[in-house]
Amino acid sequence: MEGCDVIVGYKTYVDLVKNLIRGKEVFSTGMTQEVDRCQKAIELAAQGKKVAVVSSGDAGIYGMAGLIYELMFNRHTNEEGEKRGKGETEKKISGSPVHRFSDSFIIEVIPGVPAFCAAASLLGAPLMHDFASISLSDLLTPWETIKRRLKLAAEGDFVIILYNPKSKARTFQLEEAIDMISSSRGAHTPVGIVKNGTREGEDIKIATLKELPVHYDFIDMSTILIIGNSTTFVSNNKMITPRGYNVRI
Amino acid sequence: MEGCDVIVGYKTYVDLVKNLIRGKEVFSTGMTQEVDRCQKAIELAAQGKKVAVVSSGDAGIYGMAGLIYELMFNRHTNEEGEKRGKGETEKKISGSPVHRFSDSFIIEVIPGVPAFCAAASLLGAPLMHDFASISLSDLLTPWETIKRRLKLAAEGDFVIILYNPKSKARTFQLEEAIDMISSSRGAHTPVGIVKNGTREGEDIKIATLKELPVHYDFIDMSTILIIGNSTTFVSNNKMITPRGYNVRI
Repeated sequence: MEGCDVIVGYKTYVDLVKNLIRGKEVFSTGMTQEVDRCQKAIELAAQGKKVAVVSSGDAGIYGMAGLIYELMFNRHTNEEGEKRGKGETEKKISGSPVHRFSDSFIIEVIPGVPAFCAAASLLGAPLMHDFASISLSDLLTPWETIKRRLKLAAEGDFVIILYNPKSKARTFQLEEAIDMISSSRGAHTPVGIVKNGTREGEDIKIATLKELPVHYDFIDMSTILIIGNSTTFVSNNKMITPRGYNVRI
Repeated sequence: MEGCDVIVGYKTYVDLVKNLIRGKEVFSTGMTQEVDRCQKAIELAAQGKKVAVVSSGDAGIYGMAGLIYELMFNRHTNEEGEKRGKGETEKKISGSPVHRFSDSFIIEVIPGVPAFCAAASLLGAPLMHDFASISLSDLLTPWETIKRRLKLAAEGDFVIILYNPKSKARTFQLEEAIDMISSSRGAHTPVGIVKNGTREGEDIKIATLKELPVHYDFIDMSTILIIGNSTTFVSNNKMITPRGYNVRI
């Protein structure tokens, strides 16, 4: 970010790094406006500016990295088409004139600590064995696809990470997901619940699958759930998945 | 690491941080000696030293965090038993006298950038949708369990991350894994192959499931594979998984 001219991001995330970006140009918007944000970032970069797009956790996991690439490739394809078709050197995206795509335009994805790794570190060591990550948001994915994944991940004895478990408007998915997982995993399976992990308001609970409904009101969009596999145990208030099956230490 | 007295780790990983640990006491051992290393770390900590155990990637993912906890809990249980039984205040682990477990003995897991996130960032943005991580090492896990997971993850259209795909002695698993995944995923599904990601000798290839056998000789224990879901595409030599299904940008 220090080497960049402009910082682009969701307002909440830009606020988290405000001490690092003093004096920089900032373009921030609200939730669900990620296409606008990424298009703006590309426009600014096309104007020759160095732009940092900020995500929380790892930008490569349910983050902005993919959207930037998708928009860039669309843009490139459109421009190739225009060049061939009309010989134009400029086009409009979102109403702003921008320069043509050039080979000096480089996207670099900088990996980070994913939110689920931060959550796992606070819980103990729940990810010592194979795991599956599933987002319960059905905004861009059919709920039937998500349910099928929950069922298969539970059957496969994967440690299961649940992203976006519940929002104010979207509440039934978590309950259905837990029912789905409970059909092939024991009632006493440990579940780690991490709210605002490593941020202000951090709050951590460890429960069992059976006890989880008691905590539904606690769970929101800033919460990540980690559901143990058949060998996960809780000791000294830490959630541990052994490295293997039937391993003697 | 700066605040620690002793650094413990697998020799290769300790070498990677040698510039940060000059003048520190170091205990490093070879591969497969992780129980010895972790026991040593606990002994040193019990003697009042601040000890850093170094893993590559995130210590919480197939790393040393879980083993440290498992050994600590075993130790604690043993000592509780001894206290009750014989009133002893010291016991022997691995031949060294160590002090009794005390409440001031704190384990802190520091999350890091997992190897698969570094790999993903080099490939483009393959992890924009639900994913499953599977280690092909059958040292501590029955091969049948691993195969079942491969089958279920493929059926669930998860992006699939393969850890430990192949070693010098262990070669058949990768081929079987790819056969298993190919039974429910198209021949043209993109596969990212990242060897020594972000390290000396970094080498990246993008192939399809069908082409993958050509690269079997290239793949070793320092390689991570990321297999796309049904929507993953390759453009401009980058591997991208869209954020959702049937999304128009």
